[in-house]
Amino acid sequence: MRLRHKPWALDYLQENDHIAKLQPEQLKGKWAEEFGNDRPIHIEVGTGKGQFIANMAKNNPDINYIGIEHFDNVVVSAVEKAIELGAPSNLRLIRGNAEKLEEMFDKGEVALVYLNFSDPWPKARHEKRRLTFKTFLTRYRNVMPQGGEIHFKTDNRGLFEYSLVSMTNYGMQLLDVSLDLHADDVLDNVMTEYEEKFSAKGHPIYRLEAKYQ
Amino acid sequence: MRLRHKPWALDYLQENDHIAKLQPEQLKGKWAEEFGNDRPIHIEVGTGKGQFIANMAKNNPDINYIGIEHFDNVVVSAVEKAIELGAPSNLRLIRGNAEKLEEMFDKGEVALVYLNFSDPWPKARHEKRRLTFKTFLTRYRNVMPQGGEIHFKTDNRGLFEYSLVSMTNYGMQLLDVSLDLHADDVLDNVMTEYEEKFSAKGHPIYRLEAKYQ
Ligand SMILES: C[S@@+](CC[C@H](N)C(=O)[O-])C[C@H]1O[C@@H](n2cnc3c(N)ncnc32)[C@H](O)[C@@H]1O
Ligand SMILES: C[S@@+](CC[C@H](N)C(=O)[O-])C[C@H]1O[C@@H](n2cnc3c(N)ncnc32)[C@H](O)[C@@H]1O
Repeated sequence: MRLRHKPWALDYLQENDHIAKLQPEQLKGKWAEEFGNDRPIHIEVGTGKGQFIANMAKNNPDINYIGIEHFDNVVVSAVEKAIELGAPSNLRLIRGNAEKLEEMFDKGEVALVYLNFSDPWPKARHEKRRLTFKTFLTRYRNVMPQGGEIHFKTDNRGLFEYSLVSMTNYGMQLLDVSLDLHADDVLDNVMTEYEEKFSAKGHPIYRLEAKYQ
Repeated sequence: MRLRHKPWALDYLQENDHIAKLQPEQLKGKWAEEFGNDRPIHIEVGTGKGQFIANMAKNNPDINYIGIEHFDNVVVSAVEKAIELGAPSNLRLIRGNAEKLEEMFDKGEVALVYLNFSDPWPKARHEKRRLTFKTFLTRYRNVMPQGGEIHFKTDNRGLFEYSLVSMTNYGMQLLDVSLDLHADDVLDNVMTEYEEKFSAKGHPIYRLEAKYQ
């Protein structure tokens, strides 16, 4: 993620606090109230510049979407993307670290977690930082009901291999796996920024759906 | 598998009955006796022309190997390969159908099952024929002790995706996954005939190790 220096980032996020949430802990247990309805909430962890989550929100008005991203400057880009797409009322963006997920959501408040092109952290000593490491799998489980799902895509072979092993060793069930998403007939795939970039380079895109038991 | 017509195939297998086993049911529960020792037994289901299993036997004298192949003509090629490699005393070849695995081996008699480049049977209505369909997973489980393992490689994306889902839904644990085996640093990979052919064409080779609980 290339970062322009944006000294005005915080101001911009505060001005757009109908979309951007700087203090998500205050909304824990109150997201239905925030959205004004009881529709299922799908979150993306590590949203980046927001292309995926904003388009998902636009395409699926019956689901509420929340993107979580820890860099101010990157959240700014995601807010800009949301506004460009008409600021869908079923979309929020959290500036925050996914390590604090359980402070942002009650058990059962989230129906589905998306992970897209998560940072690979290839070195063994950084395993704990991978968003599919077991402590993160516990965090996701703790904000979803029983049977909650993770939908994960990436072009990174090492991270995908690792995640297959990590998730199934955690006791998750694989519902679906594609080892070349763009070669399959997928009707409603919404591309992320990274997906556009790496699929254009000819990398296969890996995808899985996994479910907690 | 291209089949030459070999009317003498059965004669040839009978002449080489120190390697080729036409009536494996008679050896059920007696494989240690057959090999003359108690070493672990690893089997390959769908051996083809035998390059993998014969080389594994040659390289690993402390393990006993059995290849299972249902076509006479193909078993002949595997026996020829075994003889070419000095007919290792820790190698046997079964002419038989893996559907009858439980008639060939007692519970616990097999330590590990190899599946290499199994026929993909891509049509949904042929799912039952895939060697990673649940009825086959039950057969393998029934001849292994608790914690038995399957090591599977293939270039076939659809079959590999299917097998990841099938095995983990069966409750198996993934120990290791590679989505491009030949790009990894693998020291002791023994190539099969199909592996040589398809990796030369640039197909990635997929591999997994899975364990029964
Ligand atoms: C490689 S980018 C992918 C962005 C986007 N999902 C895509 O597919 O184009 C990963 C993003 O995740 C964010 N991220 C990584 N770890 C995070 C965490 N623990 N909490 C919140 N955001 C995180 C990074 O700041 C970065 O913007
Ligand atoms: C595609 S070939 C692969 C051969 C070899 N393993 C390789 O990798 O080169 C599959 C082989 O499995 C054998 N086979 C398929 N189903 C079988 C079964 N149920 N029992 C025994 N052999 C089987 C076929 O006859 C064929 O020779």
